[in-house]
Amino acid sequence: MVNRPRILLTNDDGVWAKGIRELIEVMQLFGDVTVVAPELAQSSKSNAITTSEPLRAKLIEEEEGLKVYSTNGTPVDCVKMALDVLLEDRPDFVISGINHGSNAAVSILYSGTMGAAIEGCIHGIPSVGFSLCDYAADADFSKAKSCIVKIFQQIATNGITPGTCLNINIPQGTPIGFKICRQALGKWVEEFDHRTDPTGKDYYWLTGHFKNFEPDATDTDIRALEEGYVAIVPVTIDMTAYAEMELLEKWNF
Amino acid sequence: MVNRPRILLTNDDGVWAKGIRELIEVMQLFGDVTVVAPELAQSSKSNAITTSEPLRAKLIEEEEGLKVYSTNGTPVDCVKMALDVLLEDRPDFVISGINHGSNAAVSILYSGTMGAAIEGCIHGIPSVGFSLCDYAADADFSKAKSCIVKIFQQIATNGITPGTCLNINIPQGTPIGFKICRQALGKWVEEFDHRTDPTGKDYYWLTGHFKNFEPDATDTDIRALEEGYVAIVPVTIDMTAYAEMELLEKWNF
Repeated sequence: MVNRPRILLTNDDGVWAKGIRELIEVMQLFGDVTVVAPELAQSSKSNAITTSEPLRAKLIEEEEGLKVYSTNGTPVDCVKMALDVLLEDRPDFVISGINHGSNAAVSILYSGTMGAAIEGCIHGIPSVGFSLCDYAADADFSKAKSCIVKIFQQIATNGITPGTCLNINIPQGTPIGFKICRQALGKWVEEFDHRTDPTGKDYYWLTGHFKNFEPDATDTDIRALEEGYVAIVPVTIDMTAYAEMELLEKWNF
Repeated sequence: MVNRPRILLTNDDGVWAKGIRELIEVMQLFGDVTVVAPELAQSSKSNAITTSEPLRAKLIEEEEGLKVYSTNGTPVDCVKMALDVLLEDRPDFVISGINHGSNAAVSILYSGTMGAAIEGCIHGIPSVGFSLCDYAADADFSKAKSCIVKIFQQIATNGITPGTCLNINIPQGTPIGFKICRQALGKWVEEFDHRTDPTGKDYYWLTGHFKNFEPDATDTDIRALEEGYVAIVPVTIDMTAYAEMELLEKWNF
């Protein structure tokens, strides 16, 4: 029998989230799956890693072609533990998600889902983060799963260039197609919810909404999603702003 | 009297770290300083934000031209709270550091110091992260401070292009000059320290060393630091891998 690809799954909504359960189902069509995911939600953890507390992992499910571990770490910790401690063999793919909620535009920078995909990429493994633009815990992933099947077939055929990974956001409802796009420029406009605790002390909940700085641009992930497309953004782990280097060379020390 | 610039400072080593205390001293030469920094160390928190716990801030010092707040949040939370809750006026600069330890190469992706600078940049404010390549709590920042004076004079004169920020790493000892460079390619090779707790359960400390994938390249931040230069890397918040878009357009759905 031909060796099946080894696929490492993780997420930031935690190992019991519906999104990763659905992703397991899809990925088992393509290979042997090992899940290493946070035991509790680790949303918005970006590329954070844990060095001030010890990390632990627990094997919580095992059957033919599937192993599931939970850890007390961040999504990036999960990938590091998988590669260095838990997996016998290096995986062929690192797939993160399916996130409950969009990671388009600047959200990529805060996203634990994408943090894990970026970590896979740093280690030279073809890596992808999938997100569905629906924050509901019981979101309907059926259409997203069909999209992921089509996308994974392309990845398996064409590969992903080393040093890059993919940030893939899937709109609600039935997508009308797939679009290759760039990260939209914009920011989260924070509106802290200010409250007072029973002892009279102030506290704040971080909340907010996304403001698109370029609503007229037609080549962004935000626009693609608005139009009903699956938005596929190739992502680099090299954050150098090359165009700026020449300008800085003129600084006069 | 001419209005002095308003400078927001933060870090990831916590408000009591020596590095930020030294940074306060330097920045008071140039403007009115507000510090909003984590009350405890928040190293390696990347661009993580806190939405599952309430945030709090405490004014812990106040004198002419200086206010210092501590928060229970991450470095990015600190910047968000400063901009939306704590500061009366938008700052002219966001300066993060001085970090105890290097944030060169791929470490930028994990760094809370750079997470804060990137957040300032997202909000359109000229932003810089400074790191000294010395992890010691009592590191000698005297040479680093002279460098920061020279660099800040350049920033105040020339500005920083919107959408970019600066990742500046300062070698130990007396730097021999300043070099504009790119992020070195490489990764952290993890070596988890495996231990057993008193109840017989396994746990792991995340540790490791940096592996430079391009030791022969002469234009990287790692090389500049090895040669004794201050390494200045312009950083973009747009993670799109533009060169890949054309390749992905050939995918066949």
